[in-house]
Amino acid sequence: MTQVISTSEFLSTRKQTIESALPDYIQSLSIPESLKESMLYSLEAGGKRLRPVLVLATLSSFGKSESLGIPVGCAIEMIHTYSLIHDDLPCMDDDDLRRGKPTNHKVFGEALAVLAGDGLLTQSFQLISTIDHPEVTAEMKLQLITELVDAAGIKGMVGGQVADMEGEKKSLSLEELEFIHEHKTGKLLEYSIIAGAILAGASKEEIEKLREFSFHLGLAFQIRDDILDIEGDQEKIGKPVGSDKENEKTTYPALLTLEGAKEKLVTHIQLAKMNLHQLLITTTLLEGLCDLIAMRDH
Amino acid sequence: MTQVISTSEFLSTRKQTIESALPDYIQSLSIPESLKESMLYSLEAGGKRLRPVLVLATLSSFGKSESLGIPVGCAIEMIHTYSLIHDDLPCMDDDDLRRGKPTNHKVFGEALAVLAGDGLLTQSFQLISTIDHPEVTAEMKLQLITELVDAAGIKGMVGGQVADMEGEKKSLSLEELEFIHEHKTGKLLEYSIIAGAILAGASKEEIEKLREFSFHLGLAFQIRDDILDIEGDQEKIGKPVGSDKENEKTTYPALLTLEGAKEKLVTHIQLAKMNLHQLLITTTLLEGLCDLIAMRDH
Repeated sequence: MTQVISTSEFLSTRKQTIESALPDYIQSLSIPESLKESMLYSLEAGGKRLRPVLVLATLSSFGKSESLGIPVGCAIEMIHTYSLIHDDLPCMDDDDLRRGKPTNHKVFGEALAVLAGDGLLTQSFQLISTIDHPEVTAEMKLQLITELVDAAGIKGMVGGQVADMEGEKKSLSLEELEFIHEHKTGKLLEYSIIAGAILAGASKEEIEKLREFSFHLGLAFQIRDDILDIEGDQEKIGKPVGSDKENEKTTYPALLTLEGAKEKLVTHIQLAKMNLHQLLITTTLLEGLCDLIAMRDH
Repeated sequence: MTQVISTSEFLSTRKQTIESALPDYIQSLSIPESLKESMLYSLEAGGKRLRPVLVLATLSSFGKSESLGIPVGCAIEMIHTYSLIHDDLPCMDDDDLRRGKPTNHKVFGEALAVLAGDGLLTQSFQLISTIDHPEVTAEMKLQLITELVDAAGIKGMVGGQVADMEGEKKSLSLEELEFIHEHKTGKLLEYSIIAGAILAGASKEEIEKLREFSFHLGLAFQIRDDILDIEGDQEKIGKPVGSDKENEKTTYPALLTLEGAKEKLVTHIQLAKMNLHQLLITTTLLEGLCDLIAMRDH
């Protein structure tokens, strides 16, 4: 259990690192005050900060300084935040609450929420293009930007969101469900790990191996989400248990039974670790994160 | 008059160059069909393509091959298109028509319109990060991306849009009106010229001189817009003459009288040209564009 505790300590301390760096990228800018407030409101609304923590964990696994990953980590968190602001809009999921607080458009109005999202998305690219560190070459920054577009844009998260919207009206096959998760949430999780690897100067082969690792980790994350919606503690997960069934959402337990979903979760965690073990890096931390994701209660 | 005709020929031929290149960046991608249709619908809806044409004109003024500027030109047009899609949304300007055609959300629904905008914005950065040309260094691409974020994001167009929304409720001073125009439309026009200069390998001094040129050109463009709303031909400008007054919009003629606005237009065109003449480049084409903008009837 020491392993799991130390991983969870890593999560909580690095979450703080990111949370103290994140507002600085917006706070100091000379921009309309309402826009700044709206962006900061959502950036500072909490969350696990899992994506930036994965950047730092990957750097650490390659024996590199974690500080290298802070700008990219914050860029990813800005993208994740913009996607939540736009997802919550009345024309999308129409959510009034996010993490127990009123959603951005509820506080600032829809127009400003759209623009705050657009602003966070645009600004995120500058955090990467202006990284100022002797170990980060211009080519690395361009690779980070190119991969981020694929992960966050129409071939990744935005495409997954469209597929999800269109899937809401029908019952999905396992293949369709996997496509949605892989794109809507998986690609940005994967990017977090790949970005850490690029910054660490990883080889092409190492990056491809980590991509497979991330693919399985991302699906495991999503299957655990579906299981928590059935077995979870309402207070811990922050939303009513059983909401997927009520909303007639296609989930892994619905397609595979609860037992089948649990087996699939174990399989993906095993496959993730198998890929990890083929790399010549210190895998303890990333393995610990696998276990945390497989066992998390929120 | 030969001068003006040759500039307008440049405009119309280069508009075609951009319009034939633009869909290719989206058409070939493997993404959800509805998302592709929605993005292409707005990308192919026409317009003057002034921004990409300015990239090509600047390259030509430096004696460089215009083909160097096509990816950046198309990236700027994607950003311009995303901003129109989001501006037209019911929560923003609530427009049903754009260039005589139903707006994106009228055809594809609001949710898909938001995501098509997000997708175009994200994808635009990849057109720059993946430029494949021996003359374009990694450092140039990063400078292009950094400047694009400033021009299109919270310090530029998005910030200007917020200022414009907030200004709608009150009558503005000349200074406030100028801030809005400089940011909402000026910065992306300026970027088009600066991007051409970066690709041409211009010096810092040349870039700063062109920035001043663009500042005056952008304001002239906007003043002409306001004048056309009073004196223009409804059929040519594609919207009812007098709509600014009806919507109680603060305009240059409203603040300065029509005569005063015309004088200010002439002053900005003169200042633009003055900056241009301090550069050791072939200025004929950019001067011609100044004249076209000062005299355009739509």
